[in-house]
Amino acid sequence: MLQSTQFALREGEIHLGIGHPEEALLPKDLLAQAAAHRFAQNGAAFLQYGADVGDDLFRLELATFLSRHYGFKVEPNTLYITNGISQALDFVCRYLSQPGDVIFVEEPSYFLALHIFADYQLNIIPVPLDAEGLMVDELEPLIKKHQPKLLYTIPIHQNPSGVSLSEARRQKLLELAETYKILVLADEVYHLLTYEGQAPTAMAAYTESKQVISLGSFSKILAPGLRLGWLNAHPSLLDKLAQSGMVQSGGGLNPFASGVVRSMLELGLQDSYLASAKAIYHSRLDAMDDALKALPLRYQKPKGGYFFWLELPEAMDATILLEAAVRQGVSFQPGPKFSAQEKLSHYLRLCFSYYDSTILKEGIARLYTTMNTM
Amino acid sequence: MLQSTQFALREGEIHLGIGHPEEALLPKDLLAQAAAHRFAQNGAAFLQYGADVGDDLFRLELATFLSRHYGFKVEPNTLYITNGISQALDFVCRYLSQPGDVIFVEEPSYFLALHIFADYQLNIIPVPLDAEGLMVDELEPLIKKHQPKLLYTIPIHQNPSGVSLSEARRQKLLELAETYKILVLADEVYHLLTYEGQAPTAMAAYTESKQVISLGSFSKILAPGLRLGWLNAHPSLLDKLAQSGMVQSGGGLNPFASGVVRSMLELGLQDSYLASAKAIYHSRLDAMDDALKALPLRYQKPKGGYFFWLELPEAMDATILLEAAVRQGVSFQPGPKFSAQEKLSHYLRLCFSYYDSTILKEGIARLYTTMNTM
Repeated sequence: MLQSTQFALREGEIHLGIGHPEEALLPKDLLAQAAAHRFAQNGAAFLQYGADVGDDLFRLELATFLSRHYGFKVEPNTLYITNGISQALDFVCRYLSQPGDVIFVEEPSYFLALHIFADYQLNIIPVPLDAEGLMVDELEPLIKKHQPKLLYTIPIHQNPSGVSLSEARRQKLLELAETYKILVLADEVYHLLTYEGQAPTAMAAYTESKQVISLGSFSKILAPGLRLGWLNAHPSLLDKLAQSGMVQSGGGLNPFASGVVRSMLELGLQDSYLASAKAIYHSRLDAMDDALKALPLRYQKPKGGYFFWLELPEAMDATILLEAAVRQGVSFQPGPKFSAQEKLSHYLRLCFSYYDSTILKEGIARLYTTMNTM
Repeated sequence: MLQSTQFALREGEIHLGIGHPEEALLPKDLLAQAAAHRFAQNGAAFLQYGADVGDDLFRLELATFLSRHYGFKVEPNTLYITNGISQALDFVCRYLSQPGDVIFVEEPSYFLALHIFADYQLNIIPVPLDAEGLMVDELEPLIKKHQPKLLYTIPIHQNPSGVSLSEARRQKLLELAETYKILVLADEVYHLLTYEGQAPTAMAAYTESKQVISLGSFSKILAPGLRLGWLNAHPSLLDKLAQSGMVQSGGGLNPFASGVVRSMLELGLQDSYLASAKAIYHSRLDAMDDALKALPLRYQKPKGGYFFWLELPEAMDATILLEAAVRQGVSFQPGPKFSAQEKLSHYLRLCFSYYDSTILKEGIARLYTTMNTM
């Protein structure tokens, strides 16, 4: 069977583990409009080998967009245009770490980031998380013990737990990073996807420090297939990445998509799409929350992002539940996937971005049936 | 000053060192047509996280295109979609080599590839080249001495020398690669840019062997800003690349550009553009050849590609000449850039793709003036 997208699902399967936007939500018409606009402008710089750190005109538009949404000034020269956060993490590991360096990660954390860190032979040490995010107050003894070079955090609507790092903890984390010279990699992919309440100050506010790199992407707020993201950090860090042989040879990482998305930004299409996508995701979040009430699962309702993180009754194992669930036509991500120490066996992650509310409810109903037959 | 493209030139400067297509030659209208076509189709898979090795539908179209132009059958499952050859080389070094491995490179070779190999701490050993390309007959003792794991060759219209590897030497190289288990990285970016005579069989014909990887790109035949290329090899080698944490997380490397270029291929626009680009480059090659006749330089007229490789009179040093040339408003790449051992000081490379014939002639006239004042 021919495959175009990353996941190929079985007919009728509802896979609540897929952390992708729904294909039908991707704004094909808006992107068509943006592309037509870009092609109609004078010049073809977006089709040429691009400036190493990214097109300055795109960085200007992106800085304006981020400043407006973050609520503080983002300087264009702190932005490095990437192929998304996965590629940005890959680059950071490559140019700003050494094999054997210790990296702290949240337990639980985004499992595929762990795979990238493993590629670079980093020594992955999990640190605990609670309802206010990374337990920063417990960090100092662990820092003294393990001497980490890096710390990877998803500080808002965390994948998978849904929790956000409080303002107070952000400040404390920054102090620790400065004191112990730890490079904080803040994966802020869900920052602009806050549906309830006010988001805390993005870590991107602190890139005057050379200890903070904020990572962002258009994958969750526009379209993953663009492979377009950004890394927001002190300019001296950006220069190191641009010294890569790959960049020196091939130039900037994504001139073409940058050109099209520059038009999305200039025409205000990104703003309007973001507003509509947030409204849709918010309603899906509520729908999943409603449906989950019938199930014997403990959870904190998320305020943004893509995910619910659920605790099973103590006797139940998520991996065993998954095997039974698949037979009922529903899938999810079991807890141990997100653990750097193969724990969390009675947790699971559900995603509400990939299906509409009707299918989400049907998926949860199948999960309910599965749990009742265990 | 705001910078969009990789090179920012001074006003009035003619930089014959830039190995890029001219921006005015990039087919903006055709790409606009292709993008509009892609956006008008049902589905939005090209905007979603993509299949790890690349979109199967794009791989099918690409295989058909390559089969037609190469003159032998290219199987879709031997193609891995990349962000161009620079990224492909980067990936190959990462997943198919170890620091300290010996890599043979042609002397001279593409200087920015050497930078990528150095990033991966490969031990770069130059091997000689003559008018028939890599001197394969002299390779065996060097292989025995250095035990290379990799060999990087630009087997056609070589950058910088312009020479092409003969059919007989290709066969001998394949035998050596099999015997000594050397992975041959064949950078065939200029294969489809043959303006005179018949190109030898592309190395892509031999990917049944697990010792050959052929690298191709749309950068020189369509538009570099797309960051779209391919790696053509035995499927077992492709699988190793797709295991990358970056790919497992972010999916295929370039779904969006793949979708647009798929339309270029489907609509026959790539074929017609390639034909017109070849005609233009051919005329520029001839114009540069004509202009060069007045200068005391030895060279073999290239039959394709982008470059002339010129030998200066013995007493003249290319780096010193360059300093004087810059004052006359013309630049080029001096020979030592292409040497893994800082030799080749009385050679220089000129590119004929970046300017029209009038400007090329003016550039050569400035070089003539410079040489006369030395």
